[in-house]
Amino acid sequence: MFEKIIEMGLLFDFYGKLLSDTQYIVVKNYYLRDLSLSEIANNLDISRQGVHDALKRSEKKLYLYEEKLKLVEKFQRNREKIKNIVKYIDELQEHEQTPSAGKADQNIENIKKMVKDILETS
Amino acid sequence: MFEKIIEMGLLFDFYGKLLSDTQYIVVKNYYLRDLSLSEIANNLDISRQGVHDALKRSEKKLYLYEEKLKLVEKFQRNREKIKNIVKYIDELQEHEQTPSAGKADQNIENIKKMVKDILETS
Repeated sequence: MFEKIIEMGLLFDFYGKLLSDTQYIVVKNYYLRDLSLSEIANNLDISRQGVHDALKRSEKKLYLYEEKLKLVEKFQRNREKIKNIVKYIDELQEHEQTPSAGKADQNIENIKKMVKDILETS
Repeated sequence: MFEKIIEMGLLFDFYGKLLSDTQYIVVKNYYLRDLSLSEIANNLDISRQGVHDALKRSEKKLYLYEEKLKLVEKFQRNREKIKNIVKYIDELQEHEQTPSAGKADQNIENIKKMVKDILETS
C-alpha cells in the first residue's frame, strides 16, 4: 500500500489537474490526506460506493496519462541524473580544497555529459 | 504564422499523444510537415472542412492541456536554466587553464544554485 501511495502521489502531482473536480478531491483525500472512503463519502455527500468508483476511474485515468506521456518516468530519470550532477559538483568543491586538476577535469566533463543528456531527453 | 508553428510544434511534442488518431495526423501533417488542408483531406479521404474542424478542435485541446499542466512553460524555463549551467561550466573550464580560485568557486556556486532550482521547480 505504501508504494501505491507514493505512485499515486506522483501521478496526481503530474496529471491531477486533468481529473474532474470530484475525481480530484477523491484522489487527494484518499491518497494524500489518508481519509477513508466513508469519510470522503460523508464530506462529499455521496455514497461510499460512489467514492470507490470515482477512485477507480481516477486511477485508470492517471495511469492512462502516464502510459501516453510518461512524465513521471522522465521525471524520475532526470532526478537521478541531477543527483549525479550534485555529487560531481560536491566532489569538484572537495578537490578545490586540495587541488588535483585531472580529477576536477573529469568531474566537469561528467557534469557536462549529464546536462547534455538532460537537455536531450527532457 | 512562424511563431504559431513553433508553438504548435512544442504543444504537439508534449501533448500530441493525448489527441485522437485523426487529430494527431491532422496536426502533424499541417504544422510539422507543412501539408495544406486539401492535401490532408485527400490523404485521409475526408472533406477539407472536416480537416479544418479537426485542426481547430486539436488546437483547443492542446491549449487546454497546456493551461492545466504548463509543461511547455516549465520546459522553456528549465531550458534557460540549463543553458546558464552550460555557460558556467564553460567558464569553469576556461578558468582551469588560467587558475583563479575565487571565480571558479563562484561558478560552482552558481551551478549548484541552478541545479537546486531545477530540482525544486521541475
